[in-house]
Amino acid sequence: MKISIIGTGNLATHLSAACGRSGVQVLQVWGRNAEKAKAVAALSGAAAISGFHDLNQTADLILLAVADDAIAEMANSLAALFGKSEAQPVVVHLSGATPMAVLQAAALKHYGVFWPLQSFRSGKTVDFKKVPICINASDEKALASISRLARLLSDEVCTVSEEQRQTLHLAAVFVNNFTNHLLTISKELTDEAGVPFKLLKPLLRETVNRLDEADPQDMQTGPAIRGDLKTIERHMHLLAAHPRFRQLYALLSESIRNRDEGTGMRDEKG
Amino acid sequence: MKISIIGTGNLATHLSAACGRSGVQVLQVWGRNAEKAKAVAALSGAAAISGFHDLNQTADLILLAVADDAIAEMANSLAALFGKSEAQPVVVHLSGATPMAVLQAAALKHYGVFWPLQSFRSGKTVDFKKVPICINASDEKALASISRLARLLSDEVCTVSEEQRQTLHLAAVFVNNFTNHLLTISKELTDEAGVPFKLLKPLLRETVNRLDEADPQDMQTGPAIRGDLKTIERHMHLLAAHPRFRQLYALLSESIRNRDEGTGMRDEKG
Repeated sequence: MKISIIGTGNLATHLSAACGRSGVQVLQVWGRNAEKAKAVAALSGAAAISGFHDLNQTADLILLAVADDAIAEMANSLAALFGKSEAQPVVVHLSGATPMAVLQAAALKHYGVFWPLQSFRSGKTVDFKKVPICINASDEKALASISRLARLLSDEVCTVSEEQRQTLHLAAVFVNNFTNHLLTISKELTDEAGVPFKLLKPLLRETVNRLDEADPQDMQTGPAIRGDLKTIERHMHLLAAHPRFRQLYALLSESIRNRDEGTGMRDEKG
Repeated sequence: MKISIIGTGNLATHLSAACGRSGVQVLQVWGRNAEKAKAVAALSGAAAISGFHDLNQTADLILLAVADDAIAEMANSLAALFGKSEAQPVVVHLSGATPMAVLQAAALKHYGVFWPLQSFRSGKTVDFKKVPICINASDEKALASISRLARLLSDEVCTVSEEQRQTLHLAAVFVNNFTNHLLTISKELTDEAGVPFKLLKPLLRETVNRLDEADPQDMQTGPAIRGDLKTIERHMHLLAAHPRFRQLYALLSESIRNRDEGTGMRDEKG
C-alpha cells in the first residue's frame, strides 16, 4: 500500500521511520519547511514536497500528522484539492482527542482515525510494533485501508468507536499526564528535603509491574486504604507550605478511602 | 554479623530470604504462630522461636518486622527483656512512617531505622540488591551495625534524617499509592467503555522510562499544560457520572497549569 504523510513533527518523523522499517511505501512527505520535509521523507525513502498541490492523489492513505487545531483546516485543503474525483485517498487524523466529525465536515469521501496510543519524543527510536493503534473509519473501504496500515506497523490494533476513543484519551490523561504530575510533586518534595528522588524509582516500577498480574484496585496500599489517620495527619503537616499539594493529597486520600469503604463512587454510580 | 527477626509477615519473609541468599547469619525468627515462624526461619536457616524470652541477646541486630502500631509495644518488651545489660543488640524498626522516637521512648540503648523503600508482596521474589534501604541510628555504634547489614543486602543504602525519611515516605505515597489510584480510575473508565485497559500500558511504561532521562516536570504533556480547554471540557463532560473523578481531574489539571504558568505553587512558596 502507498501512503503519504502531511506534517514534519515528532509523530510524522516516527511514522516515516516506522514505515521505512516495515516496508510500507511512503510516496510523499509534505511540510511547509522544505528542509524538514526532506529529513522526514529520507527516513522512508519518500519524496519531500512543500507545495500542497504537488500532493500525489494516487496514495491509498494520507496521514494528517499535524497539531490538533490544524486538522480541520488541512482536511478542508485536501477536500478542495481532491475536488469531485471518485477515487480519493482515505484521509486519517492521528489524534486521540479530535472528533472524527472534523473530517466529515470537510466533505471528504473516505476518512477515519489512526491514533497511536503512545507519546513520542524526538531523538528516541520507538518500537512501533508495540505501540497500540486505535482506529476508526467512515466506511468499510476506509476501514480496510486504515486497518491494513495499522497491522503492518503494529501488533496491537484496536477498532474503537468515537466514544471509546474519547474515553481512552481521558484514561490516558490519568495514566500519563496526571501520573507525571504526581512524579513532579514527589521530585519537588525530595529535592526540598535533600534526598535523592531516584530512591523512589524501584517502588514506581513495582507499581507498574503489578499491573501485569492484577487489577490496580486490588493492589492499593498506603495510609489512606489502611485508614491510618495518624500518618495522613503527619503528611498533611509536612505539606503545610504547599497548599495545592495538600488539596491533592486530601482529595486523593478521600477518593481511595471511599472506594475502599464502598460508600463513595461505586454507590453513587449504582 | 548475626541478626534476629521479630515477625512473620511479608517483610519478615522477604528479609529472611534475602539474608539467606546474602549469607547474613540469622540466629532466630520470632513469631506467636510457631508454624509461621518455622517457615520464615527456614528461608535463612535460622531457629524459630515462639517464646519471647527465648530470644538470644547475643545478636548484633534485631529487626522489628511488625505492623507500625505494634512497634512501640515490641520495643518496650525488648527493653524489658534486655534489662540493664550493657551489650544490648541494636534494635531497628522497618517503617517509613514511624518516628525513631518510638524506640527512644522504650529506653533501648542502641536503636535505629532500617527502611526498605519497596512494597513487598507474598509469593514474589524480590531482588533485594536493588531495593533502596534508608537507614538512621541513635549513635555511631548502632549506625555501624545497621549500615553493615544494609550494605550486605542492598547496593542502594542511604542514611537519612528523621525529616528526610518522613518526606521520602510522603513522596512514596504520591509515587506509589496515588499513582495506583489513578490507574484504578483509568481501569474503571476503560472497563465502562468496553475498551481494553492494557492499551494504556505502553504509555505508562514510557512515562516511567522517561524518568531515567529527565525531570518529570520537563516531560509534562497533555491538555492541561497545553491550555487545551476544549479537550478539558470534553473530558469533564465524560466524567459527568463520576463527581469525585471530576474533582480530581479539575484539581490535577489546575495544579499542572499553575506550575506551567508560574503563578501557582512556585510563587506561593517564594
